[in-house]
This record gives sequence, C-alpha cells and structure tokens, in this order.
Amino acid sequence: MLATMRLPELSREPLSGSRAFFAVEYEPATNEVLLLDQRLLPTEIRYLRLRKADEVADAIRTMVVRGAPAIGITAAYGLAQLAAQERGDAAVFLMAIGVAGRALDATRPTAVNLAWAIARMARTAADVAKLEPDARATRMIAEAEAIHREDVAACKAMGALGAKDVPMGATVITHCNAGALATGGYGTALGVIRAAHAEGRIAKVLACETRPYLQGARLTSWELHHDGIPVEVITDSMTGHFLSRGEIGFAVVGADRIAANGDVANKIGTYGLAVLCGAHEVPFTVAAPWSTIDRRTPDGSAIPIEERSRDEVAKVGASVLVEDGIPCRHPAFDVTPARLVRAIYTERGVIRTGAGETPDSVVRRPQMP
Amino acid sequence: MLATMRLPELSREPLSGSRAFFAVEYEPATNEVLLLDQRLLPTEIRYLRLRKADEVADAIRTMVVRGAPAIGITAAYGLAQLAAQERGDAAVFLMAIGVAGRALDATRPTAVNLAWAIARMARTAADVAKLEPDARATRMIAEAEAIHREDVAACKAMGALGAKDVPMGATVITHCNAGALATGGYGTALGVIRAAHAEGRIAKVLACETRPYLQGARLTSWELHHDGIPVEVITDSMTGHFLSRGEIGFAVVGADRIAANGDVANKIGTYGLAVLCGAHEVPFTVAAPWSTIDRRTPDGSAIPIEERSRDEVAKVGASVLVEDGIPCRHPAFDVTPARLVRAIYTERGVIRTGAGETPDSVVRRPQMP
Repeated sequence: MLATMRLPELSREPLSGSRAFFAVEYEPATNEVLLLDQRLLPTEIRYLRLRKADEVADAIRTMVVRGAPAIGITAAYGLAQLAAQERGDAAVFLMAIGVAGRALDATRPTAVNLAWAIARMARTAADVAKLEPDARATRMIAEAEAIHREDVAACKAMGALGAKDVPMGATVITHCNAGALATGGYGTALGVIRAAHAEGRIAKVLACETRPYLQGARLTSWELHHDGIPVEVITDSMTGHFLSRGEIGFAVVGADRIAANGDVANKIGTYGLAVLCGAHEVPFTVAAPWSTIDRRTPDGSAIPIEERSRDEVAKVGASVLVEDGIPCRHPAFDVTPARLVRAIYTERGVIRTGAGETPDSVVRRPQMP
Repeated sequence: MLATMRLPELSREPLSGSRAFFAVEYEPATNEVLLLDQRLLPTEIRYLRLRKADEVADAIRTMVVRGAPAIGITAAYGLAQLAAQERGDAAVFLMAIGVAGRALDATRPTAVNLAWAIARMARTAADVAKLEPDARATRMIAEAEAIHREDVAACKAMGALGAKDVPMGATVITHCNAGALATGGYGTALGVIRAAHAEGRIAKVLACETRPYLQGARLTSWELHHDGIPVEVITDSMTGHFLSRGEIGFAVVGADRIAANGDVANKIGTYGLAVLCGAHEVPFTVAAPWSTIDRRTPDGSAIPIEERSRDEVAKVGASVLVEDGIPCRHPAFDVTPARLVRAIYTERGVIRTGAGETPDSVVRRPQMP
C-alpha cells in the first residue's frame, strides 16, 4: 500500500461529504480504496491507498479504520475493487468474491455492520456474476457506493432530528467518537453536533477524552477541530465539575446496542455521564442508526459486557501507568437505563424515551417501520 | 545526592511504620534525608539520599516527594539536617536556618503544611540557638521527628475511626493518592483502608487511575500492592459501571480543603464519584487531618479552583493524546457538597455530615477542640 500525507485529491466529490478529511473513500479513476490511518491520529495525518482486497482486510484488522459503519463500507469497497480486477467467468468471479468476503468478515469479531455489508455485496455478486466483467464491476462499485451514501444519509437524517433539541448557544458534551471517522461521513452523535452547529446552536463542544482508548482526545477533538467546530478536551473525571457549574447544556453520544426497552450499551463511561447529566437536569441523548436497535434484547441486563485487556488500561504508548503484576479492570462498555435517556435519534425518527417511548412502542407508529 | 534502588537500611525503626517502602525518613547515623523518588513510580523504585538543605529543596520543587504532609515533614528534616551541620554561633545558626527555610518555603506555592512545618522548626531554632552545636542539633532533629510522628499518629487515629464504618467484606473505592506516599506514613484515606484491612473488613480496593496526573494508577495501586492489600486499577470512567453492578460497598477519599459547612475540595473527579455513590446508596466518606478544615471558608463556593496546564491533559509521557492547537481544560480540583458526604474522619473525631453535623457544629462538642 502507498501512503500520502495530505488529503488525497479525488476525481469526484467525496461521498463522505467533507472536504477536510475522510475515513474511507473509493477512487474509481485508479480503483483504489483510500483510508485515513486512524492509529496515527492526532500525531500524523496519513492516508493509505489500498490496491488489493487483502490489504483492505489487513487495514480493518489492524485498526487503520474503526467504527462499525466505517469498516462495513471499507469491506464493501474492498469487494468492489476486487470485482474490477477479476476478469474470469461467473464461477471464478463468485469464488474470488466468496474467498475475499470470508477474509474480510474474519477481521473483526463483533461488528454487525461488517457482516451485513459483506452479505449485501455477496448478494449483488450473485445477481451480476453472469454479466461481462466491466458491467459486473460497475454494478459492484455502485452497490458499495450505495452502502456508503445510505450511511451518510442516515447520519444526516438523525443529525437533523437531534439538532432541533439542542438549546441555542449550548455547550454540548459527548463521549468517545461517534463521528465521521466512525461512519461513512458526518457521524451519529457528531452528526447531531454538526447539524446543530450549522444551525448556529452550538457555542462549543466538550469532548471527554474517553479512557482507556482515548477516542475522544485523539479522534473526536481532531475531527471537530478540522471541521471548524470549537472543541475542548476534558478528562472523563471532569464532567461532574463542569455540569455542577452550569457550563453544559446538552449531551449526545452514540450507541453500540439499544435494547427493546430503550436501554443503551455504549463505550465505558457513558453511564456515569448520564447519571451526572440527570443530577443536573441536562438532557442526555443518543444518536444511532436504526440497525443498532436489537429488539430481541429485552433490556440492558441481557447485553453482555466485553472485558478487554489489562494493558490497554495499564499503558499509554511507551508509558507504564500501573506496575506489572497489579490487576486492572477493563469493561469496554456500560449500560445506561432508558430512564436516563431523554431521546434516541435514528434515521427513521425520534424515540422520546424521556416521554415513555421505547423502540418497541414506536414501531407501532404509522411513520415508523 | 546518591541513589539507591532497594529499600534503604536504617539504623532504627522507620518512623513511617512501614517495612515495605517510605516516602521520607531521616537517618541519624549519617545525617541524611532519604526520599523515594515518586516521579519514577511505578517503573522504577529509587531512593535518594540527600545531604544538603538545597538538595532537599530541589527534591520538593521537582516533585520527588509530593503530598502536603509529606513535603512538610521533608522540609523539617532538611532544616534538622542543616542544624546538625552548622557549627557557628547563635547568630550564624539562625541566619542559616532562616535562609534555608525561605528557600524551602518557596519550592511549592500552595501547600499549607510546608509553611507550617518550616515555621515550627524556625520557632524551635530560636529556642535552641544559644545551646552548644550538638545540643542544638539534637533538639532540631527531635522536633522534625516529632512532626513526623504526630502526622503518622494522626493518620492512624483517623484510620481507626473510619475503619469502623467499612462494611465487613467490602470492596472499597478511592480516588487519587491520599496514602503513605502523601504523608509521613499510613495515609489519610488509605489509612482508613489500611485499618479496615487489618480488621479483615476489605475484600479489595478499586483505585481510580485519577486522570490527568494518574496518582491512583501510579501511586495508590503501587503502595497498596506493596503493603499486601488487594487492589485493582480502573479508569475514572468505570466507577458508575461497577457501582451499578453492586460491586462497591464503601468509598473513601482525602481532601485538600474542607469548608466550615462540610463541603470538600479534593482532586478533580471526586465530585462525580460522590454523585454516583449517592445514586447507588454507597457511603461516600472523607479522611483528612483537622488542619485541612478551613473554618474561615463558609462553603465550597468560596474555594478557588486552580486551572492547571493544558499539556498535563494533552500528553502522557512521550505520547501526544490531543493534537497541538486544540484546547484542553484542566481544573485540578472540584467541590463535593456536604450533603453527598456521609462522614469526615479526622484525628480529633468523626464529623457525621450525613447526620447534619458540620465542622462548625462539632467544635462545640466536649471532646472536640
């Protein structure tokens, strides 16, 4: 793979919709998948140009790109790229897509979007396998681009809904990175913030640094700063202090899974922020695509919490924070009960959890699925 | 100054009372001040042997030793050491103590204990100036040792009072480092934990890492581990999660200043922990020497909150967490209102803030000053 230090020039408008940066784009002129190497942020801005599906799989596995929607889109482009390279007959074509799809699917174990995007590309491959190679490639590329466009459109839809709830002139707090870097562009929680900023509602954003992975410090502050939205980084331990001084007017975060009753699993620290917002009567809200809602999970107690490695807590870069041999705990997520969530913004509408609505109750509304 | 890697052998029992480590001790056999270099923890255990008052001042200034009681004791030993070296007449002796005292006092701007310990040593110097050099030195060393012994005794007294409130078999959470490393030995909040552990009450301790300085990760876990008390490190963002799962039974922290109404200023993040403990009905308590109570400060709103440097948030060791040019906030302390504090343990007795007592109200009790 080749690297480029500046924002790569594209032969067309970026589908992400941003001219400042992107997590993933496809360049049809050269059949390359372009990725921002998020491992290096904020120290270095480096884009990689990937030319083979196995390079794309490596990039997902090694966290060059992260965030469930973003890795799904990246995998779809990897299969589209392969389709544009494969000149064999239908059987050869389908076998190549199948092998590459399995390799891409094995890169990350939990993200639903990855499997979903690969399955959608596989269905398209089956539909177009008997076409001429160039026609096949055109259809596969169009499908990957559709996945990308739909994701950005969903983010913009939930952003527009959420922005209406942001008080004029508010300082808004967010946790982790639910932004353009985690999606095809625009972001979920940061989509609400982008839309509210465009409406002139936002004085500034406070980004919780989000220990232990520091997605807020490294990624959220970076992407808001480069989009011209005023942002300040705070440690997770400072949220109570700024809430107690009346300096925060609105909170919005993303979600990893939402139960049927509206309980929200999200990055560790979200629950503490929600309790503190509740204690200070500051609206705590969630922005997430409808696909995040898992109606087979009745409530938050049924959501398993992954415990990750000790060393992600005990070390930062080359610095040892905790002596070897002393245990650290590392639950990667926590569960925020629906009673602490004022609203959930999705591309299909708003779930007013603060008014007693749940995902289960709103699907019975006429305009909801 | 000389360095030694292992626990230095002393010609007498350590005044800190621990055989595992100490923050500061005086070695009468060689007239040396011995300090554990806390800047290197937990990566390296290195004790420094200081032979001159200006080396002692440098060590306080550069944070070899920190914690208000610990730096007061260190400064007192620095003046005792000088007294043992000075053979001149009374005027020369008092001038030398005065000059060194001013230099020691200028090392750290805010710690009350530093000025208090230096003033106490200066009063002793005035009392003994006309004695023979050896007799002068003996009295000065005895005074510094008295300051040290009284601090350890105060920690043990408040520890014994606090331990009675720790439920049998509890997991106890603490924030920052209010331990042996911050005092003459034993610690304030960690004194309560040590006493409760000795009584068999503690299953384990959860140490909040305490961003941005990481005193919990680097110091609290280290000192408890080396004293054989089971400890696990968590990020500050995990407190809500473990409280919500019923895994925490008691919380105890130190204090930087306590107002007349019982409001407590302490390391940033304390307030958030107190709110979360309140939401889960877990006792949140404070251990601090009586000298921490400032009865001229009516309540927490009158306590100024120091805003420290951006880079302490933006960087850890050589790692850049936040891109240059993006602002970070860094309030170093926060204020926890008395209504969230169940009790304050001091060497003079317990202030039952949870039952409506305040520092102002308890001083009218017969056994309190």
